[in-house]
Formats: sequence, C-alpha cells, structure tokens
Amino acid sequence: MTKDEAVRLLKECRVKIDDIDCQLVELLNRRTRIVEDIGRAKEAAGLPVYEPNREEDVYRNVFAHNQGPLNAEALRRIYERVIDEMRSLQKMRLANKSGSDA
Amino acid sequence: MTKDEAVRLLKECRVKIDDIDCQLVELLNRRTRIVEDIGRAKEAAGLPVYEPNREEDVYRNVFAHNQGPLNAEALRRIYERVIDEMRSLQKMRLANKSGSDA
Repeated sequence: MTKDEAVRLLKECRVKIDDIDCQLVELLNRRTRIVEDIGRAKEAAGLPVYEPNREEDVYRNVFAHNQGPLNAEALRRIYERVIDEMRSLQKMRLANKSGSDA
Repeated sequence: MTKDEAVRLLKECRVKIDDIDCQLVELLNRRTRIVEDIGRAKEAAGLPVYEPNREEDVYRNVFAHNQGPLNAEALRRIYERVIDEMRSLQKMRLANKSGSDA
C-alpha cells in the first residue's frame, strides 16, 4: 500500500468512525433516558434503586451478543464505565430532588 | 404508580435496554474492526500509529452530536475507556505480530 492509498483509506475509515460515534452517542443517551424512567418508576413504587442481579443480567446479555473482535473483558470494562456514569447521573438527580424538597 | 404498574414498566424498560445494548455491542465491534483497518493501513504505509489530534477530532464529533441527558464529561469518560480498549487491542495485535515475525 502506498502512502497516498493509506491516507485515502484512513480518511474513509474516519468518516465511518465518526458516523458510528454519532450512533453510539444517540444510543447511549437513549439508554440513559430509559435508566431515568426506571429510576422514577422505582421511586414512585418504593422499589429498591440498586439491584445487583439486574447488573449481571446486563452483562450476560452483552456477552451473549458479542461477536468480537472486542473480548468479554474489554466489553465489561467499557460497560462498567457506562453503567457507572448512568448511576452517577441518577444519584445527582435524586440529590437535586431531595434538595428541592427540603 | 402502583407497585404492579412499576414492575410492568420496569420489565418493558429492561427489554428496551437489552435491545439497545445489543446495538451498542454491534457498533462497538464495528468501530473496533475499522480501528484495526486503520492500524493495518498505517503500518503498511509507515505512518505514525498514535495521532493525538485525531483523538481530539473524535471528542469534538462526539460532543457536537450529543443531545443529552449524558453531559460532555460523562461522554468523555465513556469514550476514554472505549478508545483505551481499542488501543490495547491494537497493541496486542502488534505485539503478537512482531512475536511471530521474530
């Protein structure tokens, strides 16, 4: 592969990555909105906010649908961050709410 | 909202999350495959593997398309992990390759 060919290929690949990233951002935000709905429903019904079993279900689903090249460990580390960020957002929302109730 | 209504809503939300997660896993793997193509093209053309400017472009694109509720800081932390995992995979591939060349 010549340098020119490589540069052209890189450009094409980056357009594809930027497009995938737009979809990822949209899906992550959609997931966050559903997590927020879940939080509100749990609150309204007095159900426990944290359910470790559900978290294991999430990983099971993720691993079951993984066809690589990312391996399960890499996906778990990415998902730990995703779940952690969504949980932080929920906590902030609850803290703000109890602040405004006070 | 009654407990029964909340439980039903939770179930629906979880089906939606599992579906989103399948799409996320597929997109993350598709992104990884393109990152691998980029790595191979760079290698073949003797281009530098690490380009910090490109990383900033990725964040710029991600933030520009973010409509929330995730904020830029949360997305940056998630993307740091995503980029880091894909970089690790590339490094492993290169290490294995140079091992088999030796």
